[in-house]
Amino acid sequence: MFNKDMYELGNNRSVIRELFEYGKLRARELGEDKVYDFSLGNPSVPAPREVNDTIKQLIDTVDSTALHGYTSAQGDLSVRKAIAQNLNNRFASSYSENDIYMTCGAAAGLAISIKALCEADDRFMILAPHFPEYTVFVKSAGGTPVTVPFDGDFQIDFDALSNAITEKTKAIIVNSPNNPSGVIYTRETLIKLSNVLNEAATKFGHPIFIIADEPYRELVYDGAEVPFIPAIYKNTIVCYSFSKSLSLPGERIGYLAINPVCDNARELYCAVMGAGRALGYVCAPSMLQYTVAKCLDARPNVCAYDENRNLLYNALSEIGFKCVHPSGAFYLFVKAPNGNSKEFSERAKKHGLLIVPADSFAAEGWVRIAYCVSKDMILRSLPAFEQLYKEYV
Amino acid sequence: MFNKDMYELGNNRSVIRELFEYGKLRARELGEDKVYDFSLGNPSVPAPREVNDTIKQLIDTVDSTALHGYTSAQGDLSVRKAIAQNLNNRFASSYSENDIYMTCGAAAGLAISIKALCEADDRFMILAPHFPEYTVFVKSAGGTPVTVPFDGDFQIDFDALSNAITEKTKAIIVNSPNNPSGVIYTRETLIKLSNVLNEAATKFGHPIFIIADEPYRELVYDGAEVPFIPAIYKNTIVCYSFSKSLSLPGERIGYLAINPVCDNARELYCAVMGAGRALGYVCAPSMLQYTVAKCLDARPNVCAYDENRNLLYNALSEIGFKCVHPSGAFYLFVKAPNGNSKEFSERAKKHGLLIVPADSFAAEGWVRIAYCVSKDMILRSLPAFEQLYKEYV
Repeated sequence: MFNKDMYELGNNRSVIRELFEYGKLRARELGEDKVYDFSLGNPSVPAPREVNDTIKQLIDTVDSTALHGYTSAQGDLSVRKAIAQNLNNRFASSYSENDIYMTCGAAAGLAISIKALCEADDRFMILAPHFPEYTVFVKSAGGTPVTVPFDGDFQIDFDALSNAITEKTKAIIVNSPNNPSGVIYTRETLIKLSNVLNEAATKFGHPIFIIADEPYRELVYDGAEVPFIPAIYKNTIVCYSFSKSLSLPGERIGYLAINPVCDNARELYCAVMGAGRALGYVCAPSMLQYTVAKCLDARPNVCAYDENRNLLYNALSEIGFKCVHPSGAFYLFVKAPNGNSKEFSERAKKHGLLIVPADSFAAEGWVRIAYCVSKDMILRSLPAFEQLYKEYV
Repeated sequence: MFNKDMYELGNNRSVIRELFEYGKLRARELGEDKVYDFSLGNPSVPAPREVNDTIKQLIDTVDSTALHGYTSAQGDLSVRKAIAQNLNNRFASSYSENDIYMTCGAAAGLAISIKALCEADDRFMILAPHFPEYTVFVKSAGGTPVTVPFDGDFQIDFDALSNAITEKTKAIIVNSPNNPSGVIYTRETLIKLSNVLNEAATKFGHPIFIIADEPYRELVYDGAEVPFIPAIYKNTIVCYSFSKSLSLPGERIGYLAINPVCDNARELYCAVMGAGRALGYVCAPSMLQYTVAKCLDARPNVCAYDENRNLLYNALSEIGFKCVHPSGAFYLFVKAPNGNSKEFSERAKKHGLLIVPADSFAAEGWVRIAYCVSKDMILRSLPAFEQLYKEYV
C-alpha cells in the first residue's frame, strides 16, 4: 500500500537515532543521571554568544516580512556573497555568490548533490568508515553505493579504491575530519586520491566528483591541518553545515559550494537547483541564513571538546580499550573488546552507556563514542566503562 | 554528466520564481516604485507580534544546546503534542503526537507524503488549477501526475475525475483554499469527492489517499467555511504550513498530520519517517518548532488581505477584467483578455506588472495576481492595469 523501501527505512531507524530515542526514554524512566548517552553528535557547547545576539538584533532591526520571507531558492544574495568572500579569504579560492547554494544542513546538501549528479546505474563510492545515511541518499537517488575500506591508519585503502572504480563511478563521498573515526585525511592522502580520480576520469572519459562532507571542518585539535579539497581536486562539491561550527544542528542550515573551476560548473549548479526543487526544498531557513552570514568567523568552544577528548581517550586507553586518537570532530572510535560491536553496544546499555556500534558505518568490530557531552557526564561514566571492560577480561 | 531531469528542472525555473527574480532585478535597475510585483505568495503582513516575542523569549530562557539542538526526526515531542491538541480542540479530531510529523514547510510535507506513498507506476491525481510543484514532486518520486480539470465554478469536474481514476491511482492532491483560484471547495464538493474515492477504493481493493495541502486554511474571508477534510474522508494526510498563517514562508516550518483512523496509519507514519530520511530531512528547524507550538492560535492580519482583495477585485472588474471572486488565500484569478495568458503576462511586464500566467497551473488562459502586497502598491498599479486593458479593446 505504501512504498516498501520508505516503510523499511522508517521502520529500521538509523541505529544512532534508535539509541538516542532509547536514551530519552530511559532518562525519563530512571533519571538523567543514570544514563550516559554518547549516541548522538549533538553539540554540547552552546552556540557562540553572537549567534543569539544576531538573531535578536535581526528581529529588532529587519522588517518581519523580509526576515521571515522567502529568499531566492539558492539562498539570499547577500548571504551567498558573504560566504563566498569568507571562503576566498580563508582558502584563496575564487567562489562567487553564483557558486553557493544554501541548504537545510549538510544532509540536505548531500541528498541534493547526489540527486543532481546521479544518472541511471551510477555508482557512488563511499570511504569507510562513514555516516550511514550516505547509502540512504545514494539509493534514494537511484544510484549504487560502493564502500571503499580504510587502511590501518584509517586513511584510504588505495588498492581497494582503484579496484572499486568503474566507468559508472560518478562520485566519491569524502568526510574529513571523519565521523566516526575522528581522523583527518592528510594532504598526502588527498593528493593520492586526486591522482587516482584524475587517472580514472581520463580513462573513462568523464569527471569523477568528490563530494566533500565537511561539518567538522572547524573542529580540530592540536592545530591539525584540514586541507581544502577543492584546492587539490577541482571537481569538488563541498557540503558544509553550521551544525557543529556554530552548535546549531537542529536549525538545519548549511551550504553547497560548487567549485567554479570544476567541469561544467554552471550546468552542475543548475542540476543542484533542480534537485533542490525535486526534493521539496524551497529555500534554507531565512532568519538562520541571515544569522550565519553575520557569524562566519565565530567558532564554538573547541577547548571543551578538546578537554573531553583527552579525558576520554586517556581514561579508556588506561582501562584497556583500544582507541583511535582523534584529530578532529568529537567522536572517539573504540574497538569492541571481543570484536562484536553490536553485542558490545548491547552490553554497554546495561551499564547505562549508550554507544553506537559502527557496523552501519562500514567498520565492523568498532563502536563510536560521541564526546560532545558534559565533562561531568564523562567523569561519572568512567566507572561504568571500567565495569564494562571487566566483563571481557 | 549530470542528471538530465534535474538539470532541466533547475534550468526551467518555476515561472513564479522566474518572475520573482526578474522583479528583483528590475527593481534594482528601475527603482522599487516602478515594479508592481504580484508574482509571489510571500505574505505582506508581518508575523504576529507574539512570534518574534516568542523567539526572543526562547533565546532568553531555553538552554542553547536544547533550543538549537536536534529534535527527534519526527519533531519535538512537546511540539507534536501541542499541535495534536490544537487540532483536536478545533476539529473534534483524535490526533496524538504519534500522528504528527514536523516538516520544513508544506512543500517538504508534500514531497515526503508522495515519496512515502508512491510505488512503481502509481498515479497521483491533481485537481486543477494547481500549484506547479505538485507534478515535480510526483515525478521525482517515480509516479505519474494526472491532472483533473475544474468545472465552471472552479470546483471539481466529477465526470473527468471518475474517468481519471484507475487501479494505479494512489492519491489525489487537494488544495483548498486554492492557489491560484482563491476558491474554497464546498462541503458538498468534498462529500461528493469522498463518495467517488470510496467507491473506487472498493472497486480496486485499496485505499486512495487525499493529500490535503492546507497552507491557506486560516486565510478566509466573509466567514467562509473550510471543511476539515479528515472529518469527511478518513484516508487523508494533511500537509500544513505556518508560512501564511504566521507569515513565516522563509522559515520552512509546517507539519504532516496522518489521520489516526486512516488505513494502516502506523505503517504510513513509518513510511513518512523513511521518506523524510531519504530526502535528507533530519528534523524541522528546532527553534521554529518550539516557536510555532506557542503561537498556534495566533493569526495574521487577515483584514489587510481582505482590504486588498476587495480593492483589487473591484478595481479590475470595473476596468473590464473577468475575475474569480476569491473566498480564501491571497490570489486573484483573472482571465487573460485574449485568452493567451503567456502573451498577457509578457505584455503586463512592459507596464511593470508582474503577474503569473497560469498555464503551468493547468489553467490555460488565466493569470494569477498575488495580492499579498502593500495596499499602496495596488493603488499605484491600477493605472498600469487600466493601460494594459486598453491594449486589448
